[in-house]
Amino acid sequence: MGIMKRTLICETPKAVGKEVLLKGWVNTKRDHGKITFVDLRDRSGIVQVVGSGEELSSLKPEYVIEIVGEVKKRPENLVNPKLKTGEIEVEVKKVTVLSKAEELPFDMGKEVLDLTLPVLLDNRAITLRHPTQKAILKVQEVIIDAFRKALKEKDFVEFQAPSIIPEIPEGGADVFEVKYFDHKAYLAQSPQLYKQIMTGVFERVFSINKIFRAEPSVTTRHLAEVVSLDAEFGFIDSWLDVVEMAEYTIRYILKEVSEKCEKKLAMFNATIPQIKDKIPVVKLREAQEIIFKRTKIDNRKEKDLSPEDERAICEWALEEKGSELVFVSHYPTKSRPFYTYPDPDDPEFNQGFDLIGRGFEWMTGGRRIENYELLVEHAKEWGVNIEKIGLYLQAFKYGMPPEGGFAFGAERITQGILGLKNIREGTAFPRDMERVDFRLSK
Amino acid sequence: MGIMKRTLICETPKAVGKEVLLKGWVNTKRDHGKITFVDLRDRSGIVQVVGSGEELSSLKPEYVIEIVGEVKKRPENLVNPKLKTGEIEVEVKKVTVLSKAEELPFDMGKEVLDLTLPVLLDNRAITLRHPTQKAILKVQEVIIDAFRKALKEKDFVEFQAPSIIPEIPEGGADVFEVKYFDHKAYLAQSPQLYKQIMTGVFERVFSINKIFRAEPSVTTRHLAEVVSLDAEFGFIDSWLDVVEMAEYTIRYILKEVSEKCEKKLAMFNATIPQIKDKIPVVKLREAQEIIFKRTKIDNRKEKDLSPEDERAICEWALEEKGSELVFVSHYPTKSRPFYTYPDPDDPEFNQGFDLIGRGFEWMTGGRRIENYELLVEHAKEWGVNIEKIGLYLQAFKYGMPPEGGFAFGAERITQGILGLKNIREGTAFPRDMERVDFRLSK
Repeated sequence: MGIMKRTLICETPKAVGKEVLLKGWVNTKRDHGKITFVDLRDRSGIVQVVGSGEELSSLKPEYVIEIVGEVKKRPENLVNPKLKTGEIEVEVKKVTVLSKAEELPFDMGKEVLDLTLPVLLDNRAITLRHPTQKAILKVQEVIIDAFRKALKEKDFVEFQAPSIIPEIPEGGADVFEVKYFDHKAYLAQSPQLYKQIMTGVFERVFSINKIFRAEPSVTTRHLAEVVSLDAEFGFIDSWLDVVEMAEYTIRYILKEVSEKCEKKLAMFNATIPQIKDKIPVVKLREAQEIIFKRTKIDNRKEKDLSPEDERAICEWALEEKGSELVFVSHYPTKSRPFYTYPDPDDPEFNQGFDLIGRGFEWMTGGRRIENYELLVEHAKEWGVNIEKIGLYLQAFKYGMPPEGGFAFGAERITQGILGLKNIREGTAFPRDMERVDFRLSK
Repeated sequence: MGIMKRTLICETPKAVGKEVLLKGWVNTKRDHGKITFVDLRDRSGIVQVVGSGEELSSLKPEYVIEIVGEVKKRPENLVNPKLKTGEIEVEVKKVTVLSKAEELPFDMGKEVLDLTLPVLLDNRAITLRHPTQKAILKVQEVIIDAFRKALKEKDFVEFQAPSIIPEIPEGGADVFEVKYFDHKAYLAQSPQLYKQIMTGVFERVFSINKIFRAEPSVTTRHLAEVVSLDAEFGFIDSWLDVVEMAEYTIRYILKEVSEKCEKKLAMFNATIPQIKDKIPVVKLREAQEIIFKRTKIDNRKEKDLSPEDERAICEWALEEKGSELVFVSHYPTKSRPFYTYPDPDDPEFNQGFDLIGRGFEWMTGGRRIENYELLVEHAKEWGVNIEKIGLYLQAFKYGMPPEGGFAFGAERITQGILGLKNIREGTAFPRDMERVDFRLSK
């Protein structure tokens, strides 16, 4: 058998009448009297294998096997239109078990994995093998690839941002501390300072890397480890250039997902967010006024949108502008990081913005301060240790163009497109305050 | 000026006779009496700008400016063949300073940045703007993209491996501890266990992510943060299938770099490693025998190659096999991680291998144990807490094919191809026990 070359399952329909060597996992097994049907799964698809005898009937789901058999056309009435290989089946001649599997703790053969989140995650090494879970990760791969492709087409250079950083530029307590030799360091909450430094180098840069947030609460849309899709670029004429690049990028991503993931979207009854014309842009105070008029809830003096506000502004955007996505800009300057650019016409508010989609935040971005003196002044006022961000300030001391950028969370986009109830489903190995692979006990 | 559209510098040779708006950094400036020459730099190239008057003569290196000027053909005798735009120059009409720069601490206009490593890194936000430093990062971008492209062509799926992990599967003390809420966790030394889990899901997977090593010493080839290029795949017939895939991948990378980085290689007088035929494969004990015969230094009972041994075996491979790369396999089983596959013919040695190139390690890989019981037995024997790797073991409990994989360090390949003296030059923001952006004091 060593001489035979493996045939991938997707190639079997073209091998009718031939003997093939297949390798894969037992997806499901059904015994009909003396005849056994096995659905065999490999990376390329599923095929029905049929035969009689102990060799086949003793198999169990997730056994890893090799089989030698003959590909045969199925009779018309037995064709399975749901399978790409549904017009054929493989008549088994020899079965070799490469690896056994214990009895599964639940049925993996169903179209929908109907498990609670803890069970889904406690059994992650198995549940990831289910078609729905694989589809989520493949959609995410397309999202990330599309982000890269979109920006490369616009002359952006990819760089590797560091994860271990000396200071917390964004402030806040939601940061992980690392014992760094004899010193204290932190895990990056964002590659912000580094992508700005790199804007001074390549003018247009992006990075795809992990960021870390020690979120002290468990919600359906926060993770402790996130894949951040970051972009930053120089020589903008206005903050609206940043909005435009962000819109270009998300539209590119949505287009790629719609073209490459049709079947995967269907598995989740998911649709690509609709954008009729342009994604609308509203200032925070305008958004709050709109929400007040629609809901009679008065949050017009708040410095941010509440989760309810985010849902309300999305409803407005869809009804009034035909868009499931909406940019909200001009948050209070004091409530955003020190590097965000205050609006010259009204410096109490800044030229930062969020992209809200289907009721929650997908992206954050904005124009940044490029003036060295103002940046140092803001950093001090915001309580950042300027000695520890010396490398960052150096970039501005030696000439930095007007610039801005944005950052998407890959898991948030995945969640938003597929309509996942919990963001933990949007990542293979979610980290939160209750779990690192297994549940943490108190 | 707001109405004019920006012209990129690379487009100027096609705009002779036209008025253009250029934006960029002052690369260098030379005053010749009343006439000032400025080399202006943007992401697309460098162009000579010429004019008279205070506006231009008051500029300094790294000032960020906008200029409006007319593109003119240079007289034959003033053409600069070193510049892509050397046949033209831009006669300035208007200069606007967008951002000033302080006096540079050293001359950035030279072809080679002749600085000590500490000065290079203390001034990283500036030194990264030098052509040689940009070239290093662009070559690395090509290496990483080529790794992705090579594996996608072979049906591999990219996944995101976690950085925060609950246990140290590789053993050793060279690990960073993270304060994870009320618990202790670690930064991943490798995505090893996760890529194996994912092999049970997609059969062929790769990941590109940061790994972390708390190296307690300062060498020219170790970093605390590394970009790891990891691959893992199932249904191998033998460990040699893993060697073959690793060879395919590194050859693919070298080919892409040679095609896309010709000028950048020339900046470093660098050549792509030569491989005459196949990359030779020798067992550790054979390699030690060869080294003993050549050098009379007897390391034939050591469990690993010393740095001197690595250089010696590379000399042998080049002289005898015409290859600057060589695989060394079959290290003592006990000296490698618990998951490495012992050779059935001689279980004291395993089917793991390293790729040595130009005197140091570029890659490590091997076949892994896929049998659940043996894996648990090894894990216990190696002192790994099997409760904390429960998710990993779960993958093997439920059917795992014969499999293996490999991991490259992106910075090591960059160093190896370009012949960098210190690996710190091969990364934008190196981390080691002495530095996190700035030098750490004791």
